[in-house]
Amino acid sequence: MNKVQATIITIGDELLIGQVIDTNSAFIAQELNKIGIQVLQRIAIADDEQAIFKTLNNAFNDSEIILLTGGLGPTADDITKPTLCKYFGGEMIVHQPTLDFVQYLFENVFKKPMIERNTKQAEVPSSCQVIMNEKGTAPAMLFEKNNKICIAMPGVPFEMKWIIQKKVIPLLQEKFITGFIEHKTLLTAGIGESFLAEHIIDWEKNLPANLKLAYLPKFGMIRLRLSGYGNNKEELHNSIQTEFEKLKHLVKKYLVVDEDVPIELAIAQLLQKHSKILALAESCTGGLIASAFTNHAGASNIFNGGVVCYSNFSKNKILQVPNEILNTVGAVSKETVEILAANVLQLLNSDYAIAVSGIMGPDGGTQNKPVGFVWIAVANKKEIIAKSFQFRYDRERNMQHTMVTALNMLRELIVSDCEK
Amino acid sequence: MNKVQATIITIGDELLIGQVIDTNSAFIAQELNKIGIQVLQRIAIADDEQAIFKTLNNAFNDSEIILLTGGLGPTADDITKPTLCKYFGGEMIVHQPTLDFVQYLFENVFKKPMIERNTKQAEVPSSCQVIMNEKGTAPAMLFEKNNKICIAMPGVPFEMKWIIQKKVIPLLQEKFITGFIEHKTLLTAGIGESFLAEHIIDWEKNLPANLKLAYLPKFGMIRLRLSGYGNNKEELHNSIQTEFEKLKHLVKKYLVVDEDVPIELAIAQLLQKHSKILALAESCTGGLIASAFTNHAGASNIFNGGVVCYSNFSKNKILQVPNEILNTVGAVSKETVEILAANVLQLLNSDYAIAVSGIMGPDGGTQNKPVGFVWIAVANKKEIIAKSFQFRYDRERNMQHTMVTALNMLRELIVSDCEK
Repeated sequence: MNKVQATIITIGDELLIGQVIDTNSAFIAQELNKIGIQVLQRIAIADDEQAIFKTLNNAFNDSEIILLTGGLGPTADDITKPTLCKYFGGEMIVHQPTLDFVQYLFENVFKKPMIERNTKQAEVPSSCQVIMNEKGTAPAMLFEKNNKICIAMPGVPFEMKWIIQKKVIPLLQEKFITGFIEHKTLLTAGIGESFLAEHIIDWEKNLPANLKLAYLPKFGMIRLRLSGYGNNKEELHNSIQTEFEKLKHLVKKYLVVDEDVPIELAIAQLLQKHSKILALAESCTGGLIASAFTNHAGASNIFNGGVVCYSNFSKNKILQVPNEILNTVGAVSKETVEILAANVLQLLNSDYAIAVSGIMGPDGGTQNKPVGFVWIAVANKKEIIAKSFQFRYDRERNMQHTMVTALNMLRELIVSDCEK
Repeated sequence: MNKVQATIITIGDELLIGQVIDTNSAFIAQELNKIGIQVLQRIAIADDEQAIFKTLNNAFNDSEIILLTGGLGPTADDITKPTLCKYFGGEMIVHQPTLDFVQYLFENVFKKPMIERNTKQAEVPSSCQVIMNEKGTAPAMLFEKNNKICIAMPGVPFEMKWIIQKKVIPLLQEKFITGFIEHKTLLTAGIGESFLAEHIIDWEKNLPANLKLAYLPKFGMIRLRLSGYGNNKEELHNSIQTEFEKLKHLVKKYLVVDEDVPIELAIAQLLQKHSKILALAESCTGGLIASAFTNHAGASNIFNGGVVCYSNFSKNKILQVPNEILNTVGAVSKETVEILAANVLQLLNSDYAIAVSGIMGPDGGTQNKPVGFVWIAVANKKEIIAKSFQFRYDRERNMQHTMVTALNMLRELIVSDCEK
């Protein structure tokens, strides 16, 4: 097939000392895949001329397209622009449309006086073709070399995303004729990676050569991704669809959702489908579950609200857990989560509720309730189901496992209510 | 100075199609920096033999140390182990202590039967030195070549972190004599990147040659990081300390915290210092602020709880915002956030409260209250301060800006209360 390959280069000392996590590369890779361009490698390097030169040389050997982010800001540590000018040749010149736009931004949007340093943002190497950035002051730049291209973009995610979607993707589609890439992903719960692999081994062995399966375990769930490559879009789609249906059938018992969406979004879709409303009483997850739901647009259709009852005081005051219970069996107990779930359901006049209470660590564990011990309750208007779990991880992972487990319990309850 | 450089290689198709964000590299880089090892580059590649070979060759040319994660699982897409065996030579052999440990895990921890596939986890190339992994079934492996080393680790963050801290770092400290690296970071709010750069230009120009300043803007705040390199630990520390104090003095007006901690942790520390308790009423941030605080151990010392009042119903029912106000000036109003802040403060018997209500997007905007418009109130027992803001971003960024802005308003209130 006609493979077009890209290298993503991110520039910035902060990436190499571990101060910042690179989220740009994942977004760029997704957008490239949609138009059939494979990412060969992602490389993070320092704000350093020698490193930039060497990495560009290697990348031009390996791939047709180089997408580069970072180091285009107005401060002294941002050296990408002069370095690219040296690499690709030419001299720094003022790009008038960019200067006009920067002036417009300062006058009308930022409403601040513009200083000399900001004017510099409109300077570009004469060897580049400017790609206007309507979301910020640093323009993107396109360089060509031996029929291959390099596009430099600012590293601010908000600006980079706009440039990729509005400018870079259309430009690449015009310039390169590519094969097609398709991914289909499903999410399973309740089975380990090795056992799942054994369970589908015959099917996996007989996959067509252009399809590939990947296992992505996370927080006790496993995502299975089927990826296909081909020159005929329709053939590829049919082939991947056929195998995906077989896979779905094989893992039916463990299937959470047959899309590549986070579990909270799968559950939000399930709630929306059945016009149901959720309420939350979070002790040990401290708002994590509410935040996961509300992170997605449209959460207000399925979510009424929640109580982050992080103290005994708040459990008693807002959700009426009797102090007698808190002082005897304690906040991490079947009794407490059952009352929390029942009362938040009623208080917020909702159809479903989740309540969680546990010891997330690193401190607070006891002999009987060690770190990782948690009670989870899910409720509808007729019943409450409560279970305890013992997770074995650090604070962050215990919280994530608690959330994922609670969401899967809720999913099972909704399915048994609404889809039987 | 005696520079020892490392390359971090992460292996996995999921990293190249944008399905997974790499957080391992940042952690590894931080740990290496602590012992004076610089990260030259971070490279993500596919589960592909050719790519692994080529990247290893390049990395051995550039750096003394190669740290590699991923592709060590029990499923067919995990090819790192046989590929390393081919690259470094030798044959696959069973490592008995690992096999014993895997058997122990299945019997005593997972409490599941072990299958043939799991036994494979104990096979390693005969050319490696095994580094035991007490947190999982896949051992780490150390290979040597021309006095340089390559260590392969599983990609599961929980396991990788343990291996790095308990095994790899001591091993590297024994093997390499390194220079010293020190970073000092502070966080500012209320000034743009260009203006901040102008403000400290003279100081920055006169920095010693071995010190370097970096600007890291995020969600309307700017972190400034001063990094130093040297062979004498004490001299380096004194030099960086002196310049950092000068910098702190220069940016005093905008200084949020003089450590590299997230703003919510800085505020938690401030609350703890003054023995104060916080309560939250979150509408538009939907639990994000609560989750940020409770993500850190010890949150229960400063946080009583919160209400995620995502609907008008919950604002009225739990926090007594009159329906008359919700139906006239609306949920996104000065009146609403003031009542939310005052009532959650009282309900949860706290010293401080934050209330936020706004339009985060992409839908829900109107002529008068467009997407990005938000009201924020902070309160103590004597006063309530409410301000409105117009952010200009997408949903996620609007939420983050709302949180950061609210936290900075709270910080100013606490400082004026307690530190005047």
